Amino acid sequence: MSSDSSEKMSAVKGAAAPIYFGPFLVTPQVTKYHQLPQVFYTTPLTYALVNLKPILPGHVLVSPRRVVPRVSDLTAAETSDLFLTVRRVGRMVERIHGASALNIAVQDGLNAGQSVPHVHCHIIPRKAADLDHRGGTDAIYDMLDGEEGDVGKVFREAGNSSSERAETRTRFPVVDDKDRKPRGPEDMKAEAEMLAREMEKEPVG
Amino acid sequence: MSSDSSEKMSAVKGAAAPIYFGPFLVTPQVTKYHQLPQVFYTTPLTYALVNLKPILPGHVLVSPRRVVPRVSDLTAAETSDLFLTVRRVGRMVERIHGASALNIAVQDGLNAGQSVPHVHCHIIPRKAADLDHRGGTDAIYDMLDGEEGDVGKVFREAGNSSSERAETRTRFPVVDDKDRKPRGPEDMKAEAEMLAREMEKEPVG
Repeated sequence: MSSDSSEKMSAVKGAAAPIYFGPFLVTPQVTKYHQLPQVFYTTPLTYALVNLKPILPGHVLVSPRRVVPRVSDLTAAETSDLFLTVRRVGRMVERIHGASALNIAVQDGLNAGQSVPHVHCHIIPRKAADLDHRGGTDAIYDMLDGEEGDVGKVFREAGNSSSERAETRTRFPVVDDKDRKPRGPEDMKAEAEMLAREMEKEPVG
Repeated sequence: MSSDSSEKMSAVKGAAAPIYFGPFLVTPQVTKYHQLPQVFYTTPLTYALVNLKPILPGHVLVSPRRVVPRVSDLTAAETSDLFLTVRRVGRMVERIHGASALNIAVQDGLNAGQSVPHVHCHIIPRKAADLDHRGGTDAIYDMLDGEEGDVGKVFREAGNSSSERAETRTRFPVVDDKDRKPRGPEDMKAEAEMLAREMEKEPVG
Protein backbone atom coordinates (compact mmCIF):
# COMPACT_ATOMS: atom_id res chain seq x y z
CA MET A 1 0.00 0.00 0.00
CA SER A 2 1.41 3.38 -0.96
CA SER A 3 1.74 6.20 1.55
CA ASP A 4 -0.79 8.10 -0.57
CA SER A 5 -3.47 5.46 -0.09
CA SER A 6 -2.62 5.20 3.63
CA GLU A 7 -3.16 8.92 3.93
CA LYS A 8 -6.53 8.64 2.23
CA MET A 9 -7.59 5.87 4.58
CA SER A 10 -6.68 7.84 7.66
CA ALA A 11 -9.67 10.15 7.10
CA VAL A 12 -12.05 7.23 7.43
CA LYS A 13 -11.84 5.30 10.67
CA GLY A 14 -12.49 1.60 10.37
CA ALA A 15 -12.82 1.68 6.60
CA ALA A 16 -10.13 -0.93 5.96
CA ALA A 17 -12.60 -3.34 4.33
CA PRO A 18 -13.96 -2.31 0.94
CA ILE A 19 -17.35 -0.61 1.13
CA TYR A 20 -19.93 -1.00 -1.61
CA PHE A 21 -22.89 1.19 -2.45
CA GLY A 22 -24.91 -1.40 -4.35
CA PRO A 23 -22.50 -2.56 -7.11
CA PHE A 24 -20.24 0.48 -6.69
CA LEU A 25 -17.04 0.46 -4.68
CA VAL A 26 -17.00 3.67 -2.63
CA THR A 27 -14.08 3.29 -0.24
CA PRO A 28 -11.36 5.84 -0.92
CA GLN A 29 -8.30 3.60 -0.64
CA VAL A 30 -8.52 1.79 -4.00
CA THR A 31 -8.11 3.83 -7.15
CA LYS A 32 -8.25 1.45 -10.11
CA TYR A 33 -11.99 0.64 -10.12
CA HIS A 34 -13.40 4.13 -10.72
CA GLN A 35 -14.63 4.39 -7.15
CA LEU A 36 -15.23 7.80 -5.63
CA PRO A 37 -13.62 9.15 -2.46
CA GLN A 38 -17.03 9.58 -0.90
CA VAL A 39 -17.11 7.76 2.43
CA PHE A 40 -16.58 10.07 5.42
CA TYR A 41 -17.80 8.00 8.36
CA THR A 42 -18.09 4.34 9.20
CA THR A 43 -19.21 2.13 12.03
CA PRO A 44 -18.87 -1.68 11.99
CA LEU A 45 -22.36 -1.90 10.38
CA THR A 46 -22.98 1.46 8.71
CA TYR A 47 -21.27 4.12 6.62
CA ALA A 48 -21.99 7.66 5.42
CA LEU A 49 -21.02 9.15 2.08
CA VAL A 50 -21.13 12.48 0.25
CA ASN A 51 -22.91 12.96 -3.09
CA LEU A 52 -21.48 13.80 -6.51
CA LYS A 53 -24.35 16.23 -7.05
CA PRO A 54 -26.01 17.12 -3.74
CA ILE A 55 -29.46 18.59 -4.23
CA LEU A 56 -28.75 21.05 -1.40
CA PRO A 57 -25.46 21.75 0.44
CA GLY A 58 -24.78 18.98 2.97
CA HIS A 59 -26.99 16.35 1.29
CA VAL A 60 -25.44 13.02 2.33
CA LEU A 61 -26.41 9.34 2.37
CA VAL A 62 -26.22 6.74 5.15
CA SER A 63 -26.16 3.02 4.22
CA PRO A 64 -25.66 -0.34 5.89
CA ARG A 65 -22.27 -1.95 5.15
CA ARG A 66 -24.10 -5.09 4.04
CA VAL A 67 -25.53 -4.74 0.53
CA VAL A 68 -29.26 -5.48 0.86
CA PRO A 69 -32.08 -3.74 -0.97
CA ARG A 70 -34.74 -3.42 1.72
CA VAL A 71 -34.99 -2.12 5.30
CA SER A 72 -36.77 -5.38 6.14
CA ASP A 73 -33.60 -7.25 5.06
CA LEU A 74 -31.63 -5.56 7.85
CA THR A 75 -31.03 -7.19 11.20
CA ALA A 76 -32.24 -5.38 14.31
CA ALA A 77 -28.63 -4.40 15.07
CA GLU A 78 -28.15 -3.02 11.55
CA THR A 79 -31.44 -1.10 11.73
CA SER A 80 -30.57 0.51 15.07
CA ASP A 81 -27.06 1.38 13.97
CA LEU A 82 -28.23 2.80 10.64
CA PHE A 83 -30.66 5.24 12.24
CA LEU A 84 -28.40 6.11 15.18
CA THR A 85 -25.87 7.04 12.49
CA VAL A 86 -28.54 9.02 10.63
CA ARG A 87 -29.26 10.94 13.84
CA ARG A 88 -25.59 11.61 14.50
CA VAL A 89 -24.65 12.53 10.92
CA GLY A 90 -27.83 14.64 10.63
CA ARG A 91 -26.86 16.61 13.72
CA MET A 92 -23.42 17.24 12.24
CA VAL A 93 -24.54 18.40 8.76
CA GLU A 94 -27.25 20.59 10.30
CA ARG A 95 -24.62 22.21 12.53
CA ILE A 96 -21.95 22.84 9.93
CA HIS A 97 -24.41 24.13 7.32
CA GLY A 98 -26.22 26.42 9.78
CA ALA A 99 -29.49 24.61 8.98
CA SER A 100 -32.63 24.38 11.14
CA ALA A 101 -34.24 21.14 9.92
CA LEU A 102 -33.57 17.92 7.99
CA ASN A 103 -35.38 15.91 5.38
CA ILE A 104 -34.78 12.22 6.15
CA ALA A 105 -36.04 9.78 3.52
CA VAL A 106 -35.64 6.16 2.46
CA GLN A 107 -36.99 5.00 -0.90
CA ASP A 108 -37.37 1.43 0.29
CA GLY A 109 -37.64 -0.60 -2.92
CA LEU A 110 -37.90 0.05 -6.67
CA ASN A 111 -41.59 0.97 -6.57
CA ALA A 112 -40.87 3.64 -3.97
CA GLY A 113 -38.36 5.32 -6.33
CA GLN A 114 -35.16 3.56 -5.18
CA SER A 115 -32.39 3.93 -7.78
CA VAL A 116 -29.58 1.74 -6.35
CA PRO A 117 -30.74 -1.60 -4.83
CA HIS A 118 -28.92 -1.00 -1.56
CA VAL A 119 -30.67 0.57 1.45
CA HIS A 120 -29.74 4.26 1.69
CA CYS A 121 -31.17 7.05 3.76
CA HIS A 122 -31.03 10.58 2.36
CA ILE A 123 -30.24 13.36 4.86
CA ILE A 124 -30.79 16.89 3.54
CA PRO A 125 -30.16 19.96 5.74
CA ARG A 126 -32.89 22.59 5.41
CA LYS A 127 -33.17 26.29 6.20
CA ALA A 128 -36.02 28.80 6.10
CA ALA A 129 -36.73 29.87 2.53
CA ASP A 130 -33.88 27.75 1.13
CA LEU A 131 -36.05 26.62 -1.77
CA ASP A 132 -38.29 29.64 -2.29
CA HIS A 133 -36.70 30.10 -5.72
CA ARG A 134 -37.63 26.50 -6.58
CA GLY A 135 -41.26 26.61 -5.43
CA GLY A 136 -41.04 26.34 -1.64
CA THR A 137 -39.98 23.98 1.15
CA ASP A 138 -41.34 20.83 -0.44
CA ALA A 139 -39.71 21.29 -3.84
CA ILE A 140 -37.01 19.14 -2.23
CA TYR A 141 -38.99 16.05 -3.19
CA ASP A 142 -39.10 16.89 -6.89
CA MET A 143 -35.37 17.39 -6.69
CA LEU A 144 -34.81 14.20 -4.72
CA ASP A 145 -36.79 12.18 -7.21
CA GLY A 146 -35.88 13.91 -10.40
CA GLU A 147 -32.64 13.38 -12.24
CA GLU A 148 -30.84 15.49 -9.66
CA GLY A 149 -31.45 12.99 -6.91
CA ASP A 150 -30.75 9.87 -8.94
CA VAL A 151 -27.77 8.51 -7.07
CA GLY A 152 -27.60 5.62 -9.53
CA LYS A 153 -27.18 8.00 -12.45
CA VAL A 154 -24.52 9.85 -10.52
CA PHE A 155 -22.50 6.64 -10.18
CA ARG A 156 -23.03 5.64 -13.80
CA GLU A 157 -21.84 9.06 -14.97
CA ALA A 158 -18.78 8.72 -12.77
CA GLY A 159 -17.67 5.69 -14.76
CA ASN A 160 -18.98 2.90 -12.57
CA SER A 161 -20.98 -0.10 -13.73
CA SER A 162 -24.23 0.53 -15.55
CA SER A 163 -27.70 -0.32 -14.37
CA GLU A 164 -31.08 -0.46 -16.05
CA ARG A 165 -32.78 0.45 -12.81
CA ALA A 166 -33.12 4.14 -13.62
CA GLU A 167 -34.98 3.23 -16.80
CA THR A 168 -37.49 1.00 -15.02
CA ARG A 169 -38.42 3.33 -12.20
CA THR A 170 -41.00 5.98 -12.89
CA ARG A 171 -39.71 9.52 -12.56
CA PHE A 172 -41.34 12.64 -11.36
CA PRO A 173 -40.70 15.52 -13.79
CA VAL A 174 -37.25 16.95 -13.22
CA VAL A 175 -36.80 20.41 -11.78
CA ASP A 176 -34.47 22.09 -14.20
CA ASP A 177 -31.23 23.47 -12.82
CA LYS A 178 -28.62 23.72 -15.53
CA ASP A 179 -26.36 25.88 -13.38
CA ARG A 180 -25.34 23.04 -11.08
CA LYS A 181 -22.55 20.79 -12.34
CA PRO A 182 -21.41 17.42 -10.98
CA ARG A 183 -18.40 17.89 -8.75
CA GLY A 184 -14.97 16.49 -9.36
CA PRO A 185 -13.37 13.76 -7.20
CA GLU A 186 -11.12 16.33 -5.50
CA ASP A 187 -14.13 18.36 -4.35
CA MET A 188 -15.76 15.26 -2.95
CA LYS A 189 -12.57 14.11 -1.29
CA ALA A 190 -12.16 17.50 0.36
CA GLU A 191 -15.75 17.47 1.60
CA ALA A 192 -15.48 13.87 2.83
CA GLU A 193 -12.31 14.72 4.77
CA MET A 194 -13.92 17.86 6.24
CA LEU A 195 -17.01 15.85 7.28
CA ALA A 196 -14.82 13.10 8.77
CA ARG A 197 -13.15 15.73 10.97
CA GLU A 198 -16.52 17.24 11.93
CA MET A 199 -17.91 13.82 12.89
CA GLU A 200 -15.15 13.52 15.46
CA LYS A 201 -16.60 16.59 17.21
CA GLU A 202 -20.09 15.08 17.49
CA PRO A 203 -21.01 13.59 20.86
CA VAL A 204 -21.58 9.84 20.60
CA GLY A 205 -24.87 9.69 22.55
CA MET B 1 -63.92 2.67 33.45
CA SER B 2 -66.82 1.39 31.35
CA SER B 3 -66.72 -2.01 29.66
CA ASP B 4 -66.86 -0.16 26.34
CA SER B 5 -63.62 1.73 26.99
CA SER B 6 -62.01 -1.47 28.32
CA GLU B 7 -62.91 -3.18 25.06
CA LYS B 8 -61.37 -0.34 23.07
CA MET B 9 -58.18 -0.57 25.11
CA SER B 10 -57.82 -4.27 24.53
CA ALA B 11 -56.90 -3.67 20.91
CA VAL B 12 -53.85 -1.67 21.94
CA LYS B 13 -51.37 -3.48 24.13
CA GLY B 14 -49.60 -1.35 26.67
CA ALA B 15 -51.56 1.79 25.82
CA ALA B 16 -52.78 2.40 29.36
CA ALA B 17 -51.04 5.77 29.59
CA PRO B 18 -52.43 8.56 27.42
CA ILE B 19 -50.57 9.00 24.13
CA TYR B 20 -50.14 12.40 22.49
CA PHE B 21 -49.37 13.26 18.88
CA GLY B 22 -48.01 16.74 19.47
CA PRO B 23 -50.86 18.50 21.33
CA PHE B 24 -53.43 15.92 20.26
CA LEU B 25 -54.56 13.05 22.47
CA VAL B 26 -54.67 9.94 20.26
CA THR B 27 -55.21 7.03 22.66
CA PRO B 28 -58.55 5.33 22.05
CA GLN B 29 -59.72 4.93 25.64
CA VAL B 30 -60.77 8.51 26.36
CA THR B 31 -63.68 9.96 24.42
CA LYS B 32 -64.37 13.42 25.79
CA TYR B 33 -61.41 15.31 24.31
CA HIS B 34 -62.15 14.78 20.61
CA GLN B 35 -59.29 12.33 20.31
CA LEU B 36 -59.31 9.79 17.47
CA PRO B 37 -59.14 6.00 17.86
CA GLN B 38 -55.99 5.91 15.80
CA VAL B 39 -53.29 4.11 17.77
CA PHE B 40 -52.86 0.47 16.71
CA TYR B 41 -49.47 -0.47 18.16
CA THR B 42 -47.36 0.62 21.07
CA THR B 43 -44.04 -0.21 22.68
CA PRO B 44 -42.80 1.41 25.90
CA LEU B 45 -41.14 4.16 23.81
CA THR B 46 -43.00 4.24 20.49
CA TYR B 47 -46.48 4.04 18.98
CA ALA B 48 -48.04 3.69 15.54
CA LEU B 49 -51.26 5.32 14.35
CA VAL B 50 -53.54 5.33 11.31
CA ASN B 51 -54.36 8.48 9.35
CA LEU B 52 -57.66 10.30 8.93
CA LYS B 53 -56.89 10.78 5.24
CA PRO B 54 -54.16 8.36 4.12
CA ILE B 55 -52.54 9.45 0.87
CA LEU B 56 -52.40 5.80 -0.22
CA PRO B 57 -53.97 2.72 1.43
CA GLY B 58 -51.92 1.66 4.44
CA HIS B 59 -50.27 5.07 5.01
CA VAL B 60 -49.46 5.11 8.75
CA LEU B 61 -47.29 7.12 11.14
CA VAL B 62 -44.80 5.99 13.80
CA SER B 63 -43.90 8.38 16.66
CA PRO B 64 -41.97 8.37 19.92
CA ARG B 65 -44.20 8.34 23.03
CA ARG B 66 -42.28 11.35 24.31
CA VAL B 67 -43.41 14.59 22.63
CA VAL B 68 -40.28 16.13 21.15
CA PRO B 69 -39.99 17.93 17.81
CA ARG B 70 -36.66 16.67 16.47
CA VAL B 71 -34.93 13.33 15.88
CA SER B 72 -31.88 14.83 17.60
CA ASP B 73 -34.03 15.29 20.75
CA LEU B 74 -34.51 11.51 21.00
CA THR B 75 -32.35 9.33 23.21
CA ALA B 76 -30.42 6.50 21.56
CA ALA B 77 -32.95 4.02 22.98
CA GLU B 78 -35.87 6.03 21.57
CA THR B 79 -34.18 6.33 18.17
CA SER B 80 -33.51 2.58 17.94
CA ASP B 81 -36.99 1.67 19.09
CA LEU B 82 -38.64 4.17 16.72
CA PHE B 83 -36.94 2.75 13.63
CA LEU B 84 -37.21 -0.88 14.73
CA THR B 85 -40.93 -0.14 14.99
CA VAL B 86 -40.88 1.51 11.55
CA ARG B 87 -39.28 -1.64 10.14
CA ARG B 88 -41.80 -3.93 11.83
CA VAL B 89 -44.89 -1.83 11.02
CA GLY B 90 -43.63 -1.31 7.46
CA ARG B 91 -43.30 -5.06 6.94
CA MET B 92 -46.88 -5.52 8.18
CA VAL B 93 -48.53 -2.82 6.03
CA GLU B 94 -46.57 -3.95 2.98
CA ARG B 95 -47.79 -7.52 3.54
CA ILE B 96 -51.46 -6.78 4.15
CA HIS B 97 -51.71 -4.30 1.28
CA GLY B 98 -49.90 -6.57 -1.19
CA ALA B 99 -47.31 -3.84 -1.76
CA SER B 100 -43.73 -4.19 -3.01
CA ALA B 101 -41.99 -1.14 -1.55
CA LEU B 102 -42.31 1.58 1.09
CA ASN B 103 -41.73 5.30 1.23
CA ILE B 104 -40.25 6.10 4.67
CA ALA B 105 -39.91 9.81 5.45
CA VAL B 106 -39.36 12.13 8.40
CA GLN B 107 -39.89 15.87 7.99
CA ASP B 108 -37.50 16.69 10.83
CA GLY B 109 -38.34 20.27 11.77
CA LEU B 110 -40.57 23.07 10.46
CA ASN B 111 -38.25 24.04 7.63
CA ALA B 112 -38.34 20.46 6.34
CA GLY B 113 -42.14 20.62 6.04
CA GLN B 114 -43.07 19.23 9.48
CA SER B 115 -46.70 20.06 10.35
CA VAL B 116 -47.03 18.77 13.95
CA PRO B 117 -44.01 19.53 16.21
CA HIS B 118 -43.65 15.91 17.33
CA VAL B 119 -41.30 13.50 15.57
CA HIS B 120 -43.29 11.27 13.18
CA CYS B 121 -42.17 8.91 10.47
CA HIS B 122 -44.48 8.40 7.50
CA ILE B 123 -44.70 4.84 6.14
CA ILE B 124 -46.46 4.52 2.79
CA PRO B 125 -46.86 1.11 1.05
CA ARG B 126 -46.14 1.28 -2.70
CA LYS B 127 -46.95 -0.91 -5.70
CA ALA B 128 -45.94 -0.83 -9.35
CA ALA B 129 -47.89 1.84 -11.23
CA ASP B 130 -49.92 2.80 -8.13
CA LEU B 131 -49.57 6.48 -8.93
CA ASP B 132 -49.46 6.43 -12.74
CA HIS B 133 -52.75 8.36 -12.73
CA ARG B 134 -51.15 11.01 -10.52
CA GLY B 135 -47.95 11.47 -12.50
CA GLY B 136 -45.79 8.46 -11.55
CA THR B 137 -44.02 6.87 -8.58
CA ASP B 138 -42.71 10.10 -7.11
CA ALA B 139 -46.02 11.97 -7.09
CA ILE B 140 -46.17 10.58 -3.54
CA TYR B 141 -44.08 13.54 -2.36
CA ASP B 142 -46.48 16.14 -3.75
CA MET B 143 -49.23 14.29 -1.95
CA LEU B 144 -47.23 13.94 1.26
CA ASP B 145 -46.42 17.62 1.29
CA GLY B 146 -49.61 19.06 -0.08
CA GLU B 147 -52.79 19.48 1.89
CA GLU B 148 -53.42 15.74 1.65
CA GLY B 149 -50.41 14.90 3.76
CA ASP B 150 -50.85 17.66 6.34
CA VAL B 151 -51.41 15.58 9.45
CA GLY B 152 -51.79 18.79 11.46
CA LYS B 153 -54.71 19.90 9.27
CA VAL B 154 -56.24 16.47 9.67
CA PHE B 155 -56.24 16.83 13.44
CA ARG B 156 -57.50 20.39 13.33
CA GLU B 157 -60.40 19.33 11.09
CA ALA B 158 -61.19 16.51 13.48
CA GLY B 159 -61.93 19.02 16.23
CA ASN B 160 -58.62 19.00 18.05
CA SER B 161 -56.64 22.03 19.12
CA SER B 162 -55.62 24.52 16.48
CA SER B 163 -52.12 25.40 15.36
CA GLU B 164 -50.63 28.14 13.24
CA ARG B 165 -47.92 25.80 12.07
CA ALA B 166 -49.63 24.96 8.77
CA GLU B 167 -49.74 28.65 7.90
CA THR B 168 -46.03 29.19 8.54
CA ARG B 169 -44.67 26.25 6.59
CA THR B 170 -44.27 26.62 2.87
CA ARG B 171 -46.39 24.27 0.83
CA PHE B 172 -45.76 22.50 -2.40
CA PRO B 173 -48.74 22.90 -4.77
CA VAL B 174 -51.44 20.45 -3.80
CA VAL B 175 -52.29 17.56 -6.07
CA ASP B 176 -56.03 17.85 -6.49
CA ASP B 177 -58.13 14.85 -5.49
CA LYS B 178 -61.64 15.90 -4.61
CA ASP B 179 -62.91 12.33 -4.70
CA ARG B 180 -61.19 11.33 -1.48
CA LYS B 181 -63.03 12.22 1.72
CA PRO B 182 -61.73 12.21 5.30
CA ARG B 183 -62.80 9.00 7.02
CA GLY B 184 -65.07 8.77 10.02
CA PRO B 185 -63.88 7.64 13.48
CA GLU B 186 -65.53 4.23 13.02
CA ASP B 187 -63.53 3.58 9.84
CA MET B 188 -60.32 4.50 11.62
CA LYS B 189 -61.20 2.44 14.67
CA ALA B 190 -61.89 -0.58 12.46
CA GLU B 191 -58.58 -0.13 10.64
CA ALA B 192 -56.65 0.40 13.87
CA GLU B 193 -58.12 -2.79 15.34
CA MET B 194 -57.37 -4.76 12.16
CA LEU B 195 -53.78 -3.47 12.15
CA ALA B 196 -53.41 -4.28 15.86
CA ARG B 197 -54.34 -7.89 15.09
CA GLU B 198 -51.98 -8.01 12.11
CA MET B 199 -49.10 -6.67 14.20
CA GLU B 200 -49.45 -9.69 16.46
CA LYS B 201 -48.61 -11.90 13.45
CA GLU B 202 -45.35 -10.06 12.71
CA PRO B 203 -42.17 -11.74 13.90
CA VAL B 204 -40.44 -9.63 16.55
CA GLY B 205 -36.88 -9.81 15.10
